[in-house]
Amino acid sequence: MNRQITLASRPVGYPKESDFNLIEVPIPKPEDGQVLVKTIYLSVDPYMRGRINASKSYAANVEIDEVMVGGVIAQVIESKHPDFRVGDIVNANIGWQEYGVTPVDGLRKIDPTLAPISTGAGILGMPGLTAYFGLLEVGQLQELETVFVSGAAGAVGSVVGQIAKIKGCRVVGSAGTDEKVDYIVDELGFDAAFNYKSVTDYHTELQKLLPDGIDVYFDNVGGEITDAVFPNLRIKGRVVICGQISQYNLEKPEMGPRFLWHMITKRARIEGFLVFEFADQHANALVEMAEWLQQGKLKYHETIEEGGIQSAPAAFISMLKGGNIGKQLVKIADRD
Amino acid sequence: MNRQITLASRPVGYPKESDFNLIEVPIPKPEDGQVLVKTIYLSVDPYMRGRINASKSYAANVEIDEVMVGGVIAQVIESKHPDFRVGDIVNANIGWQEYGVTPVDGLRKIDPTLAPISTGAGILGMPGLTAYFGLLEVGQLQELETVFVSGAAGAVGSVVGQIAKIKGCRVVGSAGTDEKVDYIVDELGFDAAFNYKSVTDYHTELQKLLPDGIDVYFDNVGGEITDAVFPNLRIKGRVVICGQISQYNLEKPEMGPRFLWHMITKRARIEGFLVFEFADQHANALVEMAEWLQQGKLKYHETIEEGGIQSAPAAFISMLKGGNIGKQLVKIADRD
Repeated sequence: MNRQITLASRPVGYPKESDFNLIEVPIPKPEDGQVLVKTIYLSVDPYMRGRINASKSYAANVEIDEVMVGGVIAQVIESKHPDFRVGDIVNANIGWQEYGVTPVDGLRKIDPTLAPISTGAGILGMPGLTAYFGLLEVGQLQELETVFVSGAAGAVGSVVGQIAKIKGCRVVGSAGTDEKVDYIVDELGFDAAFNYKSVTDYHTELQKLLPDGIDVYFDNVGGEITDAVFPNLRIKGRVVICGQISQYNLEKPEMGPRFLWHMITKRARIEGFLVFEFADQHANALVEMAEWLQQGKLKYHETIEEGGIQSAPAAFISMLKGGNIGKQLVKIADRD
Repeated sequence: MNRQITLASRPVGYPKESDFNLIEVPIPKPEDGQVLVKTIYLSVDPYMRGRINASKSYAANVEIDEVMVGGVIAQVIESKHPDFRVGDIVNANIGWQEYGVTPVDGLRKIDPTLAPISTGAGILGMPGLTAYFGLLEVGQLQELETVFVSGAAGAVGSVVGQIAKIKGCRVVGSAGTDEKVDYIVDELGFDAAFNYKSVTDYHTELQKLLPDGIDVYFDNVGGEITDAVFPNLRIKGRVVICGQISQYNLEKPEMGPRFLWHMITKRARIEGFLVFEFADQHANALVEMAEWLQQGKLKYHETIEEGGIQSAPAAFISMLKGGNIGKQLVKIADRD
């Protein structure tokens, strides 16, 4: 049988486990041009919170009783397409289930000799590409600039900071535990970091850690941390809006101080993006990222929930509350 | 004698006439490379409000007892530079005074045969150039897009809407009186407009007037009007931050709903700018704008205070409160 996680009800505020159902259905059969895959790792990501709202988002939202959306690292176990063989490891968008049938145009092959296959959902997958294109294309980062990253210990933020270091920049990050702060400074090489739960005056902290101001702010979080950035932006500063995780689980829109007047005096830019806009450049970026990984210039950490498909909702909720360091995954099965 | 307006005290909230002093000093003498000019029209502009704050702005702020900053349309009455002759009409940055000495590198000659010389401080001057570069370069307006302009009856907004119409766009504006709303629709050719003081639900009004959403929002005002734009932005929408006049006279920063999450789903951009960034293109833009003016494609209105230099503070305060239609000027003297 194939076990799936479906949406039971639309969350109010933070999702609860009871907002999801575990159901069993028969394992489907692939038709011509399709493959059947077995999920090895399930990816849970912040963007999924937006996909279970009723309100219109950038992609079709999950309906009640539909399988949760998401990417997986999977192994082909039956193929009806000449380009894919049984045993191939792929990144597939089959959602939260143990098995799935998919046409091959949504698949990306993963080379298991390059790095552990789990990285295909992390540093060598969507989060890594999000960091790469957000920082270099949207943020137009130049060498020797100054960078601030919120959510810096997460799957995206941790890569942003390291790429900025590769480019010779001064990099400061914020994260939600002292353990995360130590990790991004000691392990990942950030120049400095602070715990936003123990620091109270973000403005002064940023002035202290980035006294010359901020050229590029990579925002995964939003809210009060982001408020503190605008007075500290340098002339021609860029604010890359990747995520606003502090806002996703609010029952009412939050109020904050108006800041757009800073944009004039700083001649600054704020820009949002989605990684699929750069799809035609993904392959080249992954080659460069894999080289950095092999050269030891990029490091990564994974937080892996080992409890199988039934533990996916809990892992998702934990990730939304900052329980992860680096990429949050759920282990579903072993490779054959 | 030369009469000047100096800053007497830093305003709290809206400036008062008592925040300014009128003083008399001797008319200065030009040195080699300088000219002496006589002010004909004084320009009062929203940006000046920021220049009389204590807080750091993008340009040096006016100190107490210093002459108020600003551009004027003036006539050369004594020249010690070969490129300028007595009688020439120039745009000069001598501030709020009847006479001034200036080096010639800050002067721009005005051709009095092209249009009334007052336009050199308006549609063929800094406000016109601000509209031109903000809309076309920062906003990257494309033909047939949809445009919304706040402060649409002002010196900048009125030109923004007309250039957008020249580019074949649908253009909607907001303004603060029914007279202004009628003016921008009936005289300037905006497709629609609304009075932000009588309309209460800006979001619904924008949905009604721009049902396909907004490609480019040109913001002169900020505040609640701007809040209503973000949910109505189209994919890849651009928000050009030219001014935030609703915020300049607040004694405390105003709170508003957080909106940056819209930037992700819309893949949208917000950008601030200052017109001097495009200085090397100003001359070419003025040629194009003058052609449009002569072809009747651009129209303009001026609100001229006739009370001389002593009326400049009142004209400035009136402009900040929306008392003007089009460019607000103060007549100081006749041309010789």
